[in-house]
Amino acid sequence: MKRPAPRILAFDVFGTVVDWHGSIAREIQALAPQVDGNAFALAWRAGYQPTMQRVRSGELGWTRLDELHRLILDELLPRFGLAHLDDMQRQHLNRAWHRLDAWPDSVAGLQRLKARYTLTPLSNGNIGLLTNMAKRCGLPWDCILSAEVFRAYKPDPATYLGVAQVFDVAPEEVMLCAAHQDDLDAARACGLQTAYIERPLEFGALNPKDVSPVPRNDVHARDMEHLAELLGS
Amino acid sequence: MKRPAPRILAFDVFGTVVDWHGSIAREIQALAPQVDGNAFALAWRAGYQPTMQRVRSGELGWTRLDELHRLILDELLPRFGLAHLDDMQRQHLNRAWHRLDAWPDSVAGLQRLKARYTLTPLSNGNIGLLTNMAKRCGLPWDCILSAEVFRAYKPDPATYLGVAQVFDVAPEEVMLCAAHQDDLDAARACGLQTAYIERPLEFGALNPKDVSPVPRNDVHARDMEHLAELLGS
Repeated sequence: MKRPAPRILAFDVFGTVVDWHGSIAREIQALAPQVDGNAFALAWRAGYQPTMQRVRSGELGWTRLDELHRLILDELLPRFGLAHLDDMQRQHLNRAWHRLDAWPDSVAGLQRLKARYTLTPLSNGNIGLLTNMAKRCGLPWDCILSAEVFRAYKPDPATYLGVAQVFDVAPEEVMLCAAHQDDLDAARACGLQTAYIERPLEFGALNPKDVSPVPRNDVHARDMEHLAELLGS
Repeated sequence: MKRPAPRILAFDVFGTVVDWHGSIAREIQALAPQVDGNAFALAWRAGYQPTMQRVRSGELGWTRLDELHRLILDELLPRFGLAHLDDMQRQHLNRAWHRLDAWPDSVAGLQRLKARYTLTPLSNGNIGLLTNMAKRCGLPWDCILSAEVFRAYKPDPATYLGVAQVFDVAPEEVMLCAAHQDDLDAARACGLQTAYIERPLEFGALNPKDVSPVPRNDVHARDMEHLAELLGS
């Protein structure tokens, strides 16, 4: 590490701690084996930023991610020949985002980090989603911070600075840990430290992602166990 | 239990899960052995409702409990001959509320309940306070809900109904567990189930509290292990 150790570690969740692509593909194929799971997962996630942008821009009032996921899903189903799914089936499928699996190293790495740091998600997922996910996967968070707490979606500075305010610490005493450079850059602009976590298969085995180190991050970790090692846990 | 089991258990914290009286008395006596710890703890807590009322009434904008505790403390110190404490000492003493000890049965009872229910505090304490307390005591919450999340202090209905909304469940699927009948009555008025937890020594051994069963509660438990037993955990 280049700077004094942080006290609070805040984690991006979708893609960083859990494998949304593999989990959504698994869920849709269990429901409809004829559907291309890879294409369906990518299409659902592709609606994520544009739909959140409708909240950020003020076109929609504050809306939780569960509701945004459902808006995207309802548009998506006809394109995959699934327009016949009824409301109960859609509700269940929409909750697939509560049932995402952790990457194999996440729980062990977080458990090591928890002994030395306070751990929180800092995700655009809503509190209920993140809590259900943590309980199912065994993610050992110390609390659940989310866009829902701050009523703003990342990369709004209110989210990054909100973590420091909750714990009454300076921004540089918080480290954002994420697999997305744009998230880390927005956090750094607010004064947070940053740790990049490699997740080369976030978008599936067919779409490997460039995970080369970027010098402006404080830490570059292969996975969560490596992060624990680099942070002395 | 009289009704179908709840899915979410929300806990009052000060007095119900942790022993604020004994812990504050211990902290002040470590700092100033000449001070009557019992009287100091009671006096600090006596400022709690009137000071929160200044927020509820709109006289103060949203203010976290850490700040309210400090307002009370600054008024209190001269009365106990401690006007000479400097800002650092006051800050440290104010954080005594982050260092409250759990009642001896709390951690074991919550661990049993966690296997079957989702557990959250629903406290007027702020998120950082509750998170630091949980980490120090080993309280196994699934998430941290607080007045700070809802920007309203109990007994505002936004707090009780907020728990149900976070988890997308009906109010009767949430049970408030508390050692204070007024808190339980306010939760019941919002449709929540209620569990009374006996804490006869909440105000210290010199001020035992009536903990007789009140028939309108769904559950009456001697302590947290008894609650786990009554809720089948």
